[in-house]
Amino acid sequence: MTCKSSSKKYAVGVDLGGTKICTAVIDSDGRVITETTIPTNAAEGPERVIGRIKGTIRHVIRQSGVYFDMIAGIGIGSPGPLNWKTGEVLSSPNLPGWDRIPLRKIIQQSFDLPTYLENDANAAAIGEHRYGAGSGVDNMVYITISTGIGGGIICGGRIYRGETGMAGEVGHMIVNPGGPECKCGNKGCLEAFSSGTAIASRMRERLASKQYGEWRKDCLSAKDVFEAAEKGVEAARKVVQEAIYYLGVGVLNLTHLFNPRIIVIGGGVANGSPFVVESIRQFVREKAFRGVAEAVDIVPAGLGALAGVIGAATLPFVREDENR
Amino acid sequence: MTCKSSSKKYAVGVDLGGTKICTAVIDSDGRVITETTIPTNAAEGPERVIGRIKGTIRHVIRQSGVYFDMIAGIGIGSPGPLNWKTGEVLSSPNLPGWDRIPLRKIIQQSFDLPTYLENDANAAAIGEHRYGAGSGVDNMVYITISTGIGGGIICGGRIYRGETGMAGEVGHMIVNPGGPECKCGNKGCLEAFSSGTAIASRMRERLASKQYGEWRKDCLSAKDVFEAAEKGVEAARKVVQEAIYYLGVGVLNLTHLFNPRIIVIGGGVANGSPFVVESIRQFVREKAFRGVAEAVDIVPAGLGALAGVIGAATLPFVREDENR
Repeated sequence: MTCKSSSKKYAVGVDLGGTKICTAVIDSDGRVITETTIPTNAAEGPERVIGRIKGTIRHVIRQSGVYFDMIAGIGIGSPGPLNWKTGEVLSSPNLPGWDRIPLRKIIQQSFDLPTYLENDANAAAIGEHRYGAGSGVDNMVYITISTGIGGGIICGGRIYRGETGMAGEVGHMIVNPGGPECKCGNKGCLEAFSSGTAIASRMRERLASKQYGEWRKDCLSAKDVFEAAEKGVEAARKVVQEAIYYLGVGVLNLTHLFNPRIIVIGGGVANGSPFVVESIRQFVREKAFRGVAEAVDIVPAGLGALAGVIGAATLPFVREDENR
Repeated sequence: MTCKSSSKKYAVGVDLGGTKICTAVIDSDGRVITETTIPTNAAEGPERVIGRIKGTIRHVIRQSGVYFDMIAGIGIGSPGPLNWKTGEVLSSPNLPGWDRIPLRKIIQQSFDLPTYLENDANAAAIGEHRYGAGSGVDNMVYITISTGIGGGIICGGRIYRGETGMAGEVGHMIVNPGGPECKCGNKGCLEAFSSGTAIASRMRERLASKQYGEWRKDCLSAKDVFEAAEKGVEAARKVVQEAIYYLGVGVLNLTHLFNPRIIVIGGGVANGSPFVVESIRQFVREKAFRGVAEAVDIVPAGLGALAGVIGAATLPFVREDENR
């Protein structure tokens, strides 16, 4: 067990996802002391999932060797929509059965520690802003490209949540109304072109109409499509090209709207293929107004795959600062 | 001459446009004391235009009957790009010959009054936020639809300028990359579908390919197209429908990105036809996520056609507050 000073300089983060729960203890410099990932088993419903969250929090605290009274609090990043003020998860397509679950209160009572709930993309943005690629920057946009596409906006050094905490819905920016149907009901959302789910399903559509032998499989992932594109499979190349093109359009729009110092791109799809970020960067450099193009850096998430959980763990530190 | 108290509770606003210069004296409650509009005659170049600006400022101050020492300052709203910090107009497609003109300094030295320069859409947003439709609101987006399309963003009660003062380029959000070419060089910008210029030029395109008798004219304006649409001219109806449809898409995107309390729509095209705002409102109500749709009001500019000049005149009051 490491010897630690007596000030409350540690925090617990929980990145609650539809498929896995990642939990970590970090220190106030953003260093991960210990981290663990378990499956969500979301189909089992909220009660069981919450039980697993409590178990994994207990586990990481024990594992970290940090004394309980040195922990500033617990931060939870969760898929939305949620109410960050009341700490309720309102509902989520990825968490079946969740309906106005007072997750913050449940965890707070269970551990008797200040607990904070935030939209997962906002939590990751807060983490990247405090400890990652956007450290010290005033104006930043964070985008996560994974199963879906989400975003978090930092304006003047603080997270911008909007009127009801739902700002930054980058994935549902319509980039071509003639585009594919999105699960939100609209057509041509960025998410419908460029999320991991969209990349896989658009590849399946192409395969369904032609004979591709070994590529004709149902459990195709975005990763498979990227690999196939690299190997030169034409259908995969087209799907990847289109996905990246619309990411370029989306990020260009964000650049013109927010004129940010930095745009940070995280999530499985971006982390898995460095040329995604590079292609977006080139597109924006070519198409944006000079004054905004010169001001912005477009970079991969500095905290990599841990952006979500480090962001969640950052919440107790940041929210304390906000209330000062 | 009215009797006025001795505190500095008046301000001068200049709304510098490509075709006209509107100048006003307002009091600190946003009431217009006197207002005047003259042609810009932009083709005469910066020196002559600046001479006219000085003349019109002198004129409105005299006309208002306000004592010079009761004037808090002068605010200028100008087409961009400009540097609001240094007070220079960098260049502008609508102001030929303007290149790094230190407009703020010139006016400040000429009148010995604190002078402020701001992008015209930002100035109008500031005016609407202080005295118009967005009064008292934390999160607001202002859009102006006239010759071009511009925007101003209020985050947490303050204008959000971004890293280099160029945030809010609403008109250059790409809403369909297969769309018409925009003067910025990209394709399918909102401005290329829905600005006054675009509405007129898309009508001309349709007319060029068919015989429309009396509609076959070169000096067609957006107003003519709206009037023709109301009279049932099919080509005009299609152009107007498309313009409004993409305004709906653009405002929907802004709603999902900013989750604002209010979206204020001003500018000649919106002011001229109340059903523009109503159509956008319906589109967003139908297509936006419930939590953001319920939070937002979509309304016409409360200051109407004077939003620009009142906004400019608001700058001395607001900038003083910002510096406190």
